Amino acid sequence: MKYKKITAQLLKQLEEITGKDNISVSETDLNNFSIDESPEMQPHAPEVVVRPLTTSIVSDILRFADRNLIPVTPRGGGTGLSGGCVPLFGGIILSLERMNHIIKISADNFSAIVEPGVTLDQLAGNLAPHNLHYPIHIGDMSATIGGTIATNAGGMNAVKYGVTRQHILGLQAVLPSGKIIEAGGEYIKCSTGYDLTQILIGSEGTLAVVTRIILKVMPRPGNREILFVPFSDLQSAIRTVPELLRLKTIPMGLEFLDGEVVRLIEKYVDIKVPHDEQDAFLMIIMEGDSTEDIVQYFGQIESICRSNGAIEFFVPGDETGKRKLIEFREKAYQAIRRAGPFALIDVVVPRNEIANFMASVKKISQELDMPAPSMGHAGDGNIHIHPICFDPDIAAWRKKLPVLMKRIYEAGAAVGGAISGEHGIGIDKKKYMSIGISQETISLMKAIKACVDPNNILNPGKIFDF
Amino acid sequence: MKYKKITAQLLKQLEEITGKDNISVSETDLNNFSIDESPEMQPHAPEVVVRPLTTSIVSDILRFADRNLIPVTPRGGGTGLSGGCVPLFGGIILSLERMNHIIKISADNFSAIVEPGVTLDQLAGNLAPHNLHYPIHIGDMSATIGGTIATNAGGMNAVKYGVTRQHILGLQAVLPSGKIIEAGGEYIKCSTGYDLTQILIGSEGTLAVVTRIILKVMPRPGNREILFVPFSDLQSAIRTVPELLRLKTIPMGLEFLDGEVVRLIEKYVDIKVPHDEQDAFLMIIMEGDSTEDIVQYFGQIESICRSNGAIEFFVPGDETGKRKLIEFREKAYQAIRRAGPFALIDVVVPRNEIANFMASVKKISQELDMPAPSMGHAGDGNIHIHPICFDPDIAAWRKKLPVLMKRIYEAGAAVGGAISGEHGIGIDKKKYMSIGISQETISLMKAIKACVDPNNILNPGKIFDF
Repeated sequence: MKYKKITAQLLKQLEEITGKDNISVSETDLNNFSIDESPEMQPHAPEVVVRPLTTSIVSDILRFADRNLIPVTPRGGGTGLSGGCVPLFGGIILSLERMNHIIKISADNFSAIVEPGVTLDQLAGNLAPHNLHYPIHIGDMSATIGGTIATNAGGMNAVKYGVTRQHILGLQAVLPSGKIIEAGGEYIKCSTGYDLTQILIGSEGTLAVVTRIILKVMPRPGNREILFVPFSDLQSAIRTVPELLRLKTIPMGLEFLDGEVVRLIEKYVDIKVPHDEQDAFLMIIMEGDSTEDIVQYFGQIESICRSNGAIEFFVPGDETGKRKLIEFREKAYQAIRRAGPFALIDVVVPRNEIANFMASVKKISQELDMPAPSMGHAGDGNIHIHPICFDPDIAAWRKKLPVLMKRIYEAGAAVGGAISGEHGIGIDKKKYMSIGISQETISLMKAIKACVDPNNILNPGKIFDF
Repeated sequence: MKYKKITAQLLKQLEEITGKDNISVSETDLNNFSIDESPEMQPHAPEVVVRPLTTSIVSDILRFADRNLIPVTPRGGGTGLSGGCVPLFGGIILSLERMNHIIKISADNFSAIVEPGVTLDQLAGNLAPHNLHYPIHIGDMSATIGGTIATNAGGMNAVKYGVTRQHILGLQAVLPSGKIIEAGGEYIKCSTGYDLTQILIGSEGTLAVVTRIILKVMPRPGNREILFVPFSDLQSAIRTVPELLRLKTIPMGLEFLDGEVVRLIEKYVDIKVPHDEQDAFLMIIMEGDSTEDIVQYFGQIESICRSNGAIEFFVPGDETGKRKLIEFREKAYQAIRRAGPFALIDVVVPRNEIANFMASVKKISQELDMPAPSMGHAGDGNIHIHPICFDPDIAAWRKKLPVLMKRIYEAGAAVGGAISGEHGIGIDKKKYMSIGISQETISLMKAIKACVDPNNILNPGKIFDF
């Protein structure tokens, strides 16, 4: 595809569409919008940034771009971890940041309607007075709802509550042609034609720009308690997972951290955890109506953990202790960022294959002599592995990195996994996309893309080359 | 589209693909496969019935049909209620009944892999020894898993457990071209390209023939208790719903029945319910670890119901009493079938709009003088309305029926609903498909269909004309 550059004349036309307060070619904007939060990502500057206020303006922008063969990259909070909102071919950054209104909260229908630029934090703040809750809890709560839809964001609570896909009832979206569609509605079941909502979720902004979202919300949960359980080896820690998932009240969060990642976090965050010399740790988050509700499970959980070799069973005595543990987990990514050049692997595997997969990862990491501290959502099989360059020879590390990545993705596929559990493919994993997926399957995805976006103007160069 | 008739020569070729034991042109088969369980449906006989044993044979059949422009209608248990598996244009019935193997049950991954011809009953029987459970519970448990995927089947437990869509982790499917795709896997979250699993679920066999299914299963729940609560009017009964959904443990089932339907069921089924002279009834199914677990909520539920005008609060004393109530609800459809010519409406509305919608339905039914006993899944907003002809003048009733149907669908759309909550569009609702959905949205569905099935050989004439 040969895209057109945005000439002064085209810029003028675009300004007529957006209004002059909602378009920018400032150096600062072009720089800020040339990256996301991905590690090891080359910046790519857009030619212009637009900040539409309404669906109808989004429609006009897309129609204009399609007619003029200008690539459009939709962008939410810019907190993505795979380059999904990086404008690989320049063109227009379509920032949804000003479409950030909460349109409706229906306490008696357990639903909310929001614009895509609403952040997870903002949504939580607005639901709380209604005693309602949206259970997607990801590492960075400044992410926008639109962005979480693009990547089908998961996070810590997915083991109990599922991922974004399970909480979206409907969408309004603009197709590359400028046509506006409305999928789903304020209802929780539907068998009326193809589920367009679900094909858009996780499509990383390559099929349509989502302009309005109907969310399913739930009554605010009661208390939560956090358990921290050190093990002498990862295999023992992982073995407890299926047993914990057989509890009548399953954990809301069930995270593991390896010893390397724990000691790395301690180095950069001023929190110490007990038995930090051990090799593996489970963090178990239980949620219930009341503390008593939760505490009744502690005996059972402790006995499951100890029978699998837990060294200790640590329950923080107060709210401060609980918060510190959560903060410890949440700051992991920040700590890793500060440790050196790094990469991010986000494989998901069947939950009964985590141990096998992690054994392969350890072996690959040792063979290539590339440390890769790991942690992950043990409860849902989604593992985050962080190859970090502790060596002064960054160039050598960068050269070996694709070999490590490929081998780890292949190890994930070998146990029936997929290369991304929650971050998306973006630019970052594009070259690994065919690991574990057949060509026929990818061809069908591409056929759908071609049918919706024949000129390939919407977020080109993401997920697959086309 | 001009389809070709199946000549003796083509039949011979098809027999070479299927093997001669798996192809039939017997009168009995052609008759049996000309209908499903829909009321008021014209039979349409296929020209041939094939019963493939493997995915690769399904692939060969589709490639053959696509090349020869022969329509193919996939069929599961034939229990559908909208004509989705009726071969409108003749051609091939592709019955999945012999692909009925349970391939794998992973107790420690909470997943199962099955062929599409496995029935819900068969699955339940095979999961039980592993203490596992698949929570989709629909009116006819002889439905096949493949069929439930085609319609995105819901059922009584959807309020707590969601619909089929939420329990399918992955699919193998054959496209009209004969190409085999594999979507998803034995993992519970994924952000690796477009979610092809979800676009196939609910597509009523118009996009692909599903040949293998990865299901999410759960530990078997403990006890269930059933409450039966009569109200003097429907509005009062419906008003309790949002309050009941705020309980910390929400009901597993939350059904309403109107007085008309209750008295009709009593007429055909040998079960009496208390206060059957009343106008509305709630059936509340609670599930928990133990009876004590459930009973703790009874006080709260009773007080919610009574404060909204419940006449009585009936808790069956023993297992027989519980079973009788469930049977009463489950036999409703049988009773309605026996009452006379009838039609079936399956609207879904926002849960806080059920009362408004039902008021409109009552008004429409009275204005047209067409009785329409109603019941439904109050907990999820999915309402089943049954216009029944009690009059000897069936022709007059049939003439008025489309007027009633259209007005009720419009009333559903007016409160933000959709025309089918769980039965699908099939042939039955095709002419109402555009009520409440924009032309742009339907165009996108059609564009996806055209891209996957350019010759329109797969289940043609369903959902929309094309």
